[in-house]
Amino acid sequence: MRIDILTILPDLLQGPFSDSIMKRAQDKGHLELEVHDIRAYSKDKHKKVDDYQYGGGAGMVMTIEPIAAVIEKLKSERDYDEIIYMTPDGELLEQSIANEFSLKGNLMILCGHYKGVDERIREHFITREISIGSYVLSGGELGAAVLVDSVVRLIPGVLNDETSALTDSFQDDMLSPPVYTRPPEYNGWKVPEVLLSGDFGKIEAWREEKAMERTLNRRPDLLKEDGKGN
Amino acid sequence: MRIDILTILPDLLQGPFSDSIMKRAQDKGHLELEVHDIRAYSKDKHKKVDDYQYGGGAGMVMTIEPIAAVIEKLKSERDYDEIIYMTPDGELLEQSIANEFSLKGNLMILCGHYKGVDERIREHFITREISIGSYVLSGGELGAAVLVDSVVRLIPGVLNDETSALTDSFQDDMLSPPVYTRPPEYNGWKVPEVLLSGDFGKIEAWREEKAMERTLNRRPDLLKEDGKGN
Repeated sequence: MRIDILTILPDLLQGPFSDSIMKRAQDKGHLELEVHDIRAYSKDKHKKVDDYQYGGGAGMVMTIEPIAAVIEKLKSERDYDEIIYMTPDGELLEQSIANEFSLKGNLMILCGHYKGVDERIREHFITREISIGSYVLSGGELGAAVLVDSVVRLIPGVLNDETSALTDSFQDDMLSPPVYTRPPEYNGWKVPEVLLSGDFGKIEAWREEKAMERTLNRRPDLLKEDGKGN
Repeated sequence: MRIDILTILPDLLQGPFSDSIMKRAQDKGHLELEVHDIRAYSKDKHKKVDDYQYGGGAGMVMTIEPIAAVIEKLKSERDYDEIIYMTPDGELLEQSIANEFSLKGNLMILCGHYKGVDERIREHFITREISIGSYVLSGGELGAAVLVDSVVRLIPGVLNDETSALTDSFQDDMLSPPVYTRPPEYNGWKVPEVLLSGDFGKIEAWREEKAMERTLNRRPDLLKEDGKGN
């Protein structure tokens, strides 16, 4: 999979992709990631990438030209499955969208800043608008990093068994049950006996019960979505 | 505000806090941010911080001791308003939670990895569990970066007028209207005439209409939550 990220702050994206699973995905050849500095495409002599918004009001708006220039250059080099804009008013990212994107070949992700990008970019270039949650961030970079991480870890071969995605929360519309490891007792706090019993039938039943309990208590919305019980 | 982040991958957090608004918040003294490497607190000779989960199954679990050691050290130095664990099964982060946290003095944030932390840490140390969305990430670091960003930009003095938070999406349970900037025409695509009219009454009415239209189309759930229309 190839992912191109368009940003005015490429440094923000150095950390999240230079360590751990994202790094390994690139080293193993599962992910080709390119970060593009939008500012380098500005024809303005001061390399300006934003301007005051029409109609007045606080907050700058990212201008069309440099963004259109990067997008058009990249589109001339290869076909993109989706050109995604990270924005708080986009479609809410969910595990099913991460699953869907993990099957794609080429994705382009545009990070907004300030009050956002000129609407004409969204109308004429963007094929998908994604929000990582109902809150506002300083820019789209963290959102892009979150989206890439959620997608890339699902590509077969990226995770090893130790970080297996199969029993993750959300993959079956349920939260995960509690987990415990050594020592069996710490500060008087004990691991539930069933987990030490060696009875795998009982352990499985306990985990299912706890997963259901936790989902009902914390995220009952997950159970409703697929129509169970309706 | 002081924020302490506990992680086994401190390098992942270098980018997001070293540039832009988060950097300025620290330079201006609005934010004191410390990243703590949990591994440094491991008493194991190989600096191990994880172990197999009790009851079997794929995925490692982060052990109690090193995490408890960092938390106890920090708690002995100052009082914390919240000790937060970033986890996919936590309370969903929303703008109202970011607003609430932005009024706090000291926050501690624990980043999980693998299958998560030993449940006893959650039971005995954690006061709040937060999820940034219904998807799974490689670890809690990106979640912590998202949480910190959403909170810190709300601290008075952090944002300047150009990045004003007051008209952001979600602050009034509405998405923002579209924004436009120069040039008035690009590739035949024009800015809506009303925005060039100079009639601020009309502009305001247009923006309210577009914000409502966008919210109804994309996130009708936002309008329901505060009971409007019920």
